[in-house]
This record gives sequence, C-alpha cells and structure tokens, in this order.
Amino acid sequence: MRPSRRAPDQMRPVSLERGVARYAEGSCLVKFGETHVLVAATLEDKMPMWLKGQGRGWITAEYGMLPRATHERTRREASTGRPSGRTQEIQRLVGRALRAVVDLPLMGERQITIDCDVLQADGGTRTAAITGAWVALHDCFNWMKARSMISRIPLKDHVAAVSCGIHDGVPVLDLDYLEDSNAHTDANFVLTGAGGIVEIQGTAEKEPFSEAELLALMALARTGIGELVALQKQAVA
Amino acid sequence: MRPSRRAPDQMRPVSLERGVARYAEGSCLVKFGETHVLVAATLEDKMPMWLKGQGRGWITAEYGMLPRATHERTRREASTGRPSGRTQEIQRLVGRALRAVVDLPLMGERQITIDCDVLQADGGTRTAAITGAWVALHDCFNWMKARSMISRIPLKDHVAAVSCGIHDGVPVLDLDYLEDSNAHTDANFVLTGAGGIVEIQGTAEKEPFSEAELLALMALARTGIGELVALQKQAVA
Amino acid sequence: MRPSRRAPDQMRPVSLERGVARYAEGSCLVKFGETHVLVAATLEDKMPMWLKGQGRGWITAEYGMLPRATHERTRREASTGRPSGRTQEIQRLVGRALRAVVDLPLMGERQITIDCDVLQADGGTRTAAITGAWVALHDCFNWMKARSMISRIPLKDHVAAVSCGIHDGVPVLDLDYLEDSNAHTDANFVLTGAGGIVEIQGTAEKEPFSEAELLALMALARTGIGELVALQKQAVA
Amino acid sequence: MRPSRRAPDQMRPVSLERGVARYAEGSCLVKFGETHVLVAATLEDKMPMWLKGQGRGWITAEYGMLPRATHERTRREASTGRPSGRTQEIQRLVGRALRAVVDLPLMGERQITIDCDVLQADGGTRTAAITGAWVALHDCFNWMKARSMISRIPLKDHVAAVSCGIHDGVPVLDLDYLEDSNAHTDANFVLTGAGGIVEIQGTAEKEPFSEAELLALMALARTGIGELVALQKQAVA
Amino acid sequence: MRPSRRAPDQMRPVSLERGVARYAEGSCLVKFGETHVLVAATLEDKMPMWLKGQGRGWITAEYGMLPRATHERTRREASTGRPSGRTQEIQRLVGRALRAVVDLPLMGERQITIDCDVLQADGGTRTAAITGAWVALHDCFNWMKARSMISRIPLKDHVAAVSCGIHDGVPVLDLDYLEDSNAHTDANFVLTGAGGIVEIQGTAEKEPFSEAELLALMALARTGIGELVALQKQAVA
Amino acid sequence: MRPSRRAPDQMRPVSLERGVARYAEGSCLVKFGETHVLVAATLEDKMPMWLKGQGRGWITAEYGMLPRATHERTRREASTGRPSGRTQEIQRLVGRALRAVVDLPLMGERQITIDCDVLQADGGTRTAAITGAWVALHDCFNWMKARSMISRIPLKDHVAAVSCGIHDGVPVLDLDYLEDSNAHTDANFVLTGAGGIVEIQGTAEKEPFSEAELLALMALARTGIGELVALQKQAVA
Repeated sequence: MRPSRRAPDQMRPVSLERGVARYAEGSCLVKFGETHVLVAATLEDKMPMWLKGQGRGWITAEYGMLPRATHERTRREASTGRPSGRTQEIQRLVGRALRAVVDLPLMGERQITIDCDVLQADGGTRTAAITGAWVALHDCFNWMKARSMISRIPLKDHVAAVSCGIHDGVPVLDLDYLEDSNAHTDANFVLTGAGGIVEIQGTAEKEPFSEAELLALMALARTGIGELVALQKQAVA
Repeated sequence: MRPSRRAPDQMRPVSLERGVARYAEGSCLVKFGETHVLVAATLEDKMPMWLKGQGRGWITAEYGMLPRATHERTRREASTGRPSGRTQEIQRLVGRALRAVVDLPLMGERQITIDCDVLQADGGTRTAAITGAWVALHDCFNWMKARSMISRIPLKDHVAAVSCGIHDGVPVLDLDYLEDSNAHTDANFVLTGAGGIVEIQGTAEKEPFSEAELLALMALARTGIGELVALQKQAVA
Repeated sequence: MRPSRRAPDQMRPVSLERGVARYAEGSCLVKFGETHVLVAATLEDKMPMWLKGQGRGWITAEYGMLPRATHERTRREASTGRPSGRTQEIQRLVGRALRAVVDLPLMGERQITIDCDVLQADGGTRTAAITGAWVALHDCFNWMKARSMISRIPLKDHVAAVSCGIHDGVPVLDLDYLEDSNAHTDANFVLTGAGGIVEIQGTAEKEPFSEAELLALMALARTGIGELVALQKQAVA
Repeated sequence: MRPSRRAPDQMRPVSLERGVARYAEGSCLVKFGETHVLVAATLEDKMPMWLKGQGRGWITAEYGMLPRATHERTRREASTGRPSGRTQEIQRLVGRALRAVVDLPLMGERQITIDCDVLQADGGTRTAAITGAWVALHDCFNWMKARSMISRIPLKDHVAAVSCGIHDGVPVLDLDYLEDSNAHTDANFVLTGAGGIVEIQGTAEKEPFSEAELLALMALARTGIGELVALQKQAVA
Repeated sequence: MRPSRRAPDQMRPVSLERGVARYAEGSCLVKFGETHVLVAATLEDKMPMWLKGQGRGWITAEYGMLPRATHERTRREASTGRPSGRTQEIQRLVGRALRAVVDLPLMGERQITIDCDVLQADGGTRTAAITGAWVALHDCFNWMKARSMISRIPLKDHVAAVSCGIHDGVPVLDLDYLEDSNAHTDANFVLTGAGGIVEIQGTAEKEPFSEAELLALMALARTGIGELVALQKQAVA
Repeated sequence: MRPSRRAPDQMRPVSLERGVARYAEGSCLVKFGETHVLVAATLEDKMPMWLKGQGRGWITAEYGMLPRATHERTRREASTGRPSGRTQEIQRLVGRALRAVVDLPLMGERQITIDCDVLQADGGTRTAAITGAWVALHDCFNWMKARSMISRIPLKDHVAAVSCGIHDGVPVLDLDYLEDSNAHTDANFVLTGAGGIVEIQGTAEKEPFSEAELLALMALARTGIGELVALQKQAVA
C-alpha cells in the first residue's frame, strides 16, 4: 500500500484554475494534491541578446518557492545570493518543455517569461509547474491574439508532466513528498498530448533499475499525462 | 474624488484568512483590496548569535514579492543576487513593529521568522503585511501554548498598520497603487490596539508638508487601524 | 540629567567646514559633537537610465562608514560584498531629503552624487550627513554657476535634520550614541528652512509612544533645525 | 552519414590514463576523441554537516572547463561569480552516478571529492567525466586500502556513461559537438557494468521522440557502455 | 623639471599626526603632500583559524578609498560587491611590510587589523599607508603595554615606504599622481630603519629599465625613507 | 644543499610544447619541473570600453588553478564566488609583462586574452606562465599574420620570468614549492631577451634582505632567463 493510500496508477486530485494573477497576461494556479504552484506568464518585447534578429520568439521560465512552502522552512534564495543548482535545473527543464510545443517563429520576436512559484510543496512541484504553465501560456497567447499580435495560437500540442517511481517494488504514479523520499527510483516524464516524449529523467536513488521497470513507469506516466491533458482541455475550453 | 472612488476615510475591503499555509506554525492571507500578502510564521530553536543566553526570544521578518505581483514584471531577487534596499527596509520595519507588542522574555530563547510574500501588489504591501503578521504570530503562539512551550500568549497588545497620504490636497486613508503614485505626501503608521505609536514614517514626495497635515493623516490612520484591530479580533476569536 | 550633561533642548557643538575635499565640486566636513561626516558632491553628466530625456536632473546619495569609526570595529562593506540594509536605508533617506529642496528641472540633465562617509560615529550620523550635504550641494551648484552651466542656484530652501528621543521620560534633542542606545523612542526629523516637514521617522524601541510625545519631539527638532539652518547660512555666506 | 564518418554504433577512440595528477589520491585523464577531461579524486576527513554521525561516507563532484576548451572562449566562472546552471546540473549528475555504485558505509565517515576539469571539449564532456571518474575513484580506494583505511574496495559495480542521439533520422552513438548541435534528440545514459540503469536523461531538442526511438538509443548506449566498462577493467588491471 | 617643481631627491611635505581616531587603539593621519591616509589599528582577541594555537600574533591590513578621494569619482567597493585586485594587492603588501618588523610571538595570540582609508589621493597611497601604519601600530602596542598585555613594544625596527620613478629620463623620489602617470618606470620600496629591504616592486610601464636605473631609484628611496623614519621617531617620541 | 639537490644556479628541466589547445589561436604547455601550466591565447575583436578608438590593441591575462593541482585540494574559485587576491595579482602581473614587449598599435584594435591554467603546481607558477605565454602569444600573432591581419609579428623582444630566493643563506635559482616555503627571501624577475627589467618583485619573508643579496638574486635570474629565452627561440623556430 502507498503511504497516500492511492492505487498505484492513481493521480492525486488535480485542479487548474485560470486567471489567478490579476496583472499577468496568462496565469494558472495548479494543484496536484497538496502541491500548489502559481504560474504567471509575462509577455515582453525584449529578447535575449543572442536571439535577436532571428525572426522567432522565446519562452523562458523561472522557479521559486516560498520559504515556508515546505515542512521545514527553506532559506530564501534572495538571501543566499544565488538560485540553487536545483532551482536552475528546474527552470531549464520547464523552459525546454514548453518550447517543445510552441511554434517559435509564429510568436514573433517576443519573449514570454513563465514564473512558477511554489506556494505549497508536497512533491512533484516541477511536474505540476509544467502542467500549469501550459495553461498560463495558452492564455497569454489568447491575450496576444485578442490584440491581433498573432493570428492564431502558436501551440503545436499540449505538454504535461508527471513523476513516477518504484515504491516498495511497485511502480506508482504521481509521487507525493513522502513517497518520493522513499522511492528507489524516481523518474519525471514530460509528454505531449499526442504522446511524444519531450523529456525523460530517470534516477536510481539507491539501486540501479531495469529497462522493464523504466517501461512500466512510462506506461503509468502515459495514463497520468492523459488525464492531465484532458484537464488542460477543460480548463481552456 | 479619489481614483478609487472611496471616501477619504474609507479603507479598501480587508480580509484576514487564517491557517492558509499547511506547514507553518501560524499563517494568514491578508487582503487590502487587490493587495494580497501571504504571511507565514516559523518557530525555530536557533537564535541569532548575538542574542544567545539573554533569556529572551526574537521575532524577525522577511519580505518578498512574486515577480508578477506587479503591473510590470519585477526581476526576481534570487537572480539579482541580493535583496533590494526597499526589501530590507520593509523587513526591518515588520520585525520592529511586531517586537513592540511581544513579551520577548516570555517566549523563551526561540526565534519566530515571519515570511511576508506578496502574491499581488496594489499599494500598501508593508501595512497589509504587518496587519496580517499579527494574526500569524498569534496563531504561532497558540501552537506553542497547545504544546505547553509557553503558559500564555506573549502578546501585550494588537499591532496594525495603514498608509495615508495627501491626494489632490485632501488627506486620504489606505492608498492604493495609483493613489500612492500621485500623492504629494505618503505616511505609514503602525499603531497598537491601545492607540500607542509604534512607528511613523512620513515622506514628502514633492512638497514639504505641515504639522497640521501630519496630524490629519494620523487621525485618519487611527480610524483605519481601529477597523483593522477589530478584524484581527474577529479573525482569532 | 542626560548622560551628555546637555540641557534637553541643547544640540552638541556643530561645525560645517566647506571645501575639504580637494577634487570634489562641493564638500563639507560636518561635526555634531564627536560625530564627524565627510560629505563630497560629484557632478556627472551620466543619468540613471530611467530618467533620461525627462529634462530634469537627479540627486543621489551614498553612505559609508570607516571600519573604525565606531567603538567596536565594523566589518568593511567591500568585504561583506553588499551594503547593509541600514546603509541602503540611509542612502535613500539622504537622497530624498535633498531632492525635496532642489529644483530638478533647473539643474538640467545632470546627476549629482553625494558621498557621505562617516569618519567618526557617536550617534546621529544620518542627520549630520543631511545637514552637511546641503552645504556640499550648495557649493557644487556654485561651481556649476561659475561655469555658466546653470543661471542660478536651483535650491528652493534649506534642509537639515536632527534626531530626538525620550530619555528617562524626558524629550531630548540631538541624541548621541549613549543616549540613543538608552532612549525609549527615537525619531529623526528632516525639515526645510521654512519649517516644512520633508521626512519624519519615529520608532518606539520598547514601549509605544503617544501623539503628545511625538509633538514634543517635533518641537525640539524645530529648535535644533533652526540652529542648523543658521549655521548653514553662515557656512555658505 | 554522420559528420564524424563513424558508423551509427561506433564510439570515438576512447582512452583512460591513470595516475596523471601527481598529488591526487586517484586520477584519470579520459579522452572520448577530442573531448579530454582530467579527473582527480581527493580524500578528505571532513564531511558535509548534514551527514555527520551517520556511519557512512560521501562522494561529491565538481566540474569545470578551461576557458579555451571550446571553439569560442568561455568566460571563466571565477569571474562570473557563480557556477552556471549547466555546471551545477553536471556536478549533481556525476556525484549521483558514482554514489549509485559505492558501498557508502564501507567507506567510513570520509568524503571523496571528484574534480572533473575539461581540458578540451568536443561534446560528451559529462559522459566522459563519469567514465573517467570511476577509474579515479577506484584508484583512490586502492590508495586507502594500501593504507589499511578500508579492508576492500567499496565498489559494487562499474559505472560508465555515453550520449546518444537521433541524427538525420538515424540513432547514433557517442555524439561529438557537431552531431550534438544538429541532433533532434539527445539522451545521456549512465549504466552499471551489469547493465542496470543509474540515470537516463532524454531531451527532445525540436520534435518529441517516440518510445521506440528511446529504446533504440538505449540499445546503442548498452553497446557503447559495454566497451567503456571493458576499457575501465583494462585500465585498473 | 618635475611637474611638481621639486628637486629629483625631494620628498613632498610629510606629516604624521597621531591619535586621530577616537576609538582606535592606535591611529595616524599621514600626509605625503596632497595624499592623505587615515590609519587605524584595532586590537582583537580573535585570530584567523589557521593561526590558532601557534603561540604568536598576527597583523593584517585592509585598504579603502573614499569615492571622491580621486579626481574622477571612483565607484564604492561596497557597491561593486568585491574589493578590486588593486585593493587586495595593497592590503597584502601593507600586512607583509608590517609583519616583517614585528616580533609576532611577543604579541601573544592576538590580531591587530590596520585599516588604511585614503581620504585624498595624489599618488603614493600605499607608501603613505605603510609609513603611517607603523605609527598607528606603535601606539596600539603602547596601549597594550599600558594595560600590561605585553611587557615591551614588540617592534624590531621601523618600516617605511616610498615610490620612485624615472621621469623624463631622470630618477625622481616620491611620485605624485601626475608624475606617476607619466613615469616610464615605477618602483615601490619598503625598507627598515636599518636599511634592510622588506619589499621591492619595480615595474616598467612602457620600456624595460636597467639594473643601473634600479640602483639609482633605490638610492633615492634610501634618502626618502631615512627622512620618513626620522619623522616616525619624532611622532612617537 | 638545496632540497631539490640542484646546484644553486640550476634551473629545473624546462619544456615548452606548442599547439596543445586545439581551438586556441596560440597555446603552450610549459613545464618547470613538476609545475605544469597550460597557456592559451584567444584573439577577440571586442576591446575593453576604455581603450576603444585609440588605435592600439590590448593583451590581458587570466589565471586559474585546477583544484587538485596542489598537495592539498584548493577550493574552486567558481564556488568561492570571486578570484582571490593572489589570483588577481598574478593576472595583472602576466598582462603587464607581456604588454611590455608588444607593439600594441601594430596589433590593431584587437584584444588577446591569455589564459594560464595550472594543471600541476610545484612553485613558480607565475614565472612559468609568463614564459609559456610568450610562446602562445607568438603563435597567436603567427595565426594573425597567416590571415593577413597583421603584416609582421608585433613582438619587440622576448620576455621570460623566474623566481629566485635565499635558501639557508645561499642564493638559489628557480624555487620549487618546498624551497619557496623555506626561503627567507623570494623574488620574481621578469626580464626581456635583451636583459631589460620588466618587473621585479622581492619580498622578505622573515628577515629583511640587503642590496647585495638582491643583486646576487638578479644575477641568478639573468642566467635562468637566458636559458628560458633560448628555449623560447627553439620552440618557435
């Protein structure tokens, strides 16, 4: 039995609430159970220097966590003076995941910054962030379309993410913090609506895992991401 | 007429929601109109070095703002590498305001850190933070009392804060962002439930102001803080 | 009796010595008793980015303290890697105070940086800094006028500052370090020559204070600032 | 045809030279074609604070690149003031990979730091680093055994790594820089000698990839890592 | 003719004023013409970690410059976030120079920090700093002796410094800023009262210089340092 | 007898290997015995801001050390967040030494950055770096000449460097780490092929040294540098 008493292939209750940030061009409060992430999309005309004049846009992401989003208070990164390695790893992951489903030339030479701020953390903050970011990005594109900045939404597909792991020998879907701490293997999957793989990151925490186990985790991920994409569709309908 | 169409002595709608941060020992989501601040209190045994062995506790505060809490996106302080001068000024103010109403020896040698994170900003974030922080702190003390760490709540009084300013020649209460940008004088008042002054900060933005104007602003502040203290009482009742 | 054996409304001996920094466009060594601050004004053509093209000038201030200006040696801020919150708070205060009496459009698109470096500290360094900065700024404007960069001195009034506090129940003027450490209330006043309030910052160190006490402190401040403005007039005569 | 004119399943020439760092407890200069990484293992008694008293050792890794290891000179990280996100990501990966095959309790409460410094970069620096690090670590354990600090080498298995990608629709093994820049999918595999998966990181650079493609890449990786493990065996024989 | 109209072997007017920093255990305001450096010695019980338990003391130095000590304003190092290479080079030089004449074991396990703050700079700030630091250090030792912390002054000799250079083909003593900017060779000499060499740093700015020229500069330096040591003797008499 | 069993005027075995960095415009692996420094020259069109439009080029140098180049592991400067004072001192020295023999106007408005990375350290890393840097710089100029960017090699002379010291009362040439740690005096000499002095830095580690000792050290340096220049000639022949 999982600590969360969920079935192995059962997601936590997920919700995607749009329009939660009054000033952002797009936003979404995403909840995977007790993990709550506020995602805000900001449209800007300025581009990173190395991308100027190439006739395409850019999506970048930043990630933060409120100090008391966690069981123990985490030190504020503004005080430590630099984003941690973990923070930077997540920021790069979220940016890559979104860019994989965006038609960048169609955006024009504009940059959208996706801020993912974790209000409460119970495992899976990066997968929740990606899932909610797609909704915020979609709404940001809607905002642009309403102002005739683009003729159509430059999204090629949905993208969503979930973590899976092997808990007590059993592959399980959507790890919460307690499960994640005890899992022998932890893998994050980022898939498109069509089922294409955008990113896969599997790590053996203690013992190496087998290809069969990896495939079992991926099968679970497909189930979960199917549900997440359905919820994204509802959210933006 | 104020841009907000409020009467000169009219506060924005204020709410104080307790228990919003699952892991914190005390928390409060405070709203002054469209200004929303999430306050979380964290109890720790560790003390600042310079306070050890003095037989009293300490309250400190940290302040942050989500990048898209504002009309224009603000750069994340974890990226700039240091809290801004404004951030530090607010952190020191919130800490001082709370310590003024706490019986520090009664707390024992413990430190409570008050995290004030602005989810949405429309002026008056520091005054909202102080007002909500009192509730979070109260609940943190409750948590300690329930565990027999203290015999009674070491709060000597309420403390709350509001900003006032002179807009188009008229003293007005509780400035929102637009009013604050146009005010000729801007003053923050931190008062106790009994009406004692804990902190007063008045600044002439363009033209110096007179003692009479200062007293008019203080009278408005007394009205507003009276309402805030009444709401704090309801919240912790 | 005050520790300094001064009467409650008695300032420390104050002196304002002009022209002390050989290379600066204006400078002043200001002494409030044993508090000595060297103020230097630097004229520069470069403007902060956000002010360009607005047809007005800017005054900014920086503040530092020699490591052994204090009883105990203070760590050099160049070593700690960042100006402290206190330093930034003072820098912002000095800049605001001066800008309140300057006709910024008359200056043209130029920036003056006011460096306030504390050679010796015995309380009241920020108030001494503001008082001396007015003299340094005046001389910097004189320098500009002599070179026909401006047609007249763009100062609308004098500005000076003093701290007051309640010591052993008695309101007293111009706190030195020992008095400041023991005061129950500490307030800084920045007033113009005409008596207008530019800034007021009052803080209850332990017990809240009353409106009557605030007014008593302000009355003392008016006395002290009257004397300081008279000294400024002598200095630049 | 690959730009490197290698067969799809052909590694670059690989060499593992031991004992290249005169002062290190273990070292290896690893070459994957024109990618050259100098790995040095340092044994220290000090442990990270959070691991003390747990009766087991720790392996950590650091990664750097000489500024002119690359086609264009890269800015020195000592000058930028912080390791980049990419650097930190690699450091964490190398540390995790090695810990997966080390019997940490058998090491005793000691820390080994693995420094991976890229002398020349032509793609695959992280996979070369992991492969060479196993040899340096092995020699460091030998050094400890020779001094009776441990009774046997606390390595449970080999670990090695290789990157694979899809180039012009064809899955290819061991990408060099040019191939990596043009690949549509890029995946790093870290496997043990027994074929267990320690880490898998697959990223779609432009188009999502399929499960079949992932499995094809993994099959290639197994081939390559088989060769690398054989070379490790020769190296430490 | 030198720009300063001094004879080639003529120092600028030099003065050494003791006791200028009210709170320091020893201090000296040293002037080499228009170069003014305030030196303060601070005695502390804490030692650098790597020196503890070795039964000897330590002398360290820090160096700073007021932003407007120079013709053009220099950016404050607290703002740039780190001491410049030049600052660190001077700090190390001043510390080494003083330690060369101190009987460190006789000091006991204590550290003296020498703060050298340049109030006004016209060339030769490091040589003035060393010369004045000897006086401040002497007075700090006097302070310790008066409190029976040491039985006698642990100074083995005087130490002083001067810069020389080749200006328009002529070796000249004690370069001011203008001469320094135009000199083809610039050398700093740190000598003891007995004429021993503690440090010599000679740099060809444009053309290499000859051994004969070096010896001519050293002869000038001996003259100048003889005068400086005589002034140190007067100062502490 | 020296610890290294070398004669007092005997250099360590020296080698200069060109073309070791595949991508650099010029490079040299220089070995002074067990001290190994990899020098790479990078040509760039960008110039430092303050040099633009002056019709001459610039040579700058950076210096680093692999963490385990030393007996004890040294902390990576990318982690400490800033280059140490020692690093900056060496960087400035190497840059000055090279610029002394380069015809900067002949280079055109281009900058060459010389990266000196210590792979293994056994004393004299800065002198080895300068000696090898001349070769790397020469090859970089060759690279430019081959592309008709310059008409002839803009080197006015050779430049090389060596350290000397007084060990057990005897002046000795080319100190290794052990000798350097025990020397009473340590001096670095940078000379041109024609014997001109570019830089001399002599430091008394414990006791001051005499002019006679300085001249003895310089005589040794001339011998050593004569050999180094001969090797440079062979290397680029």
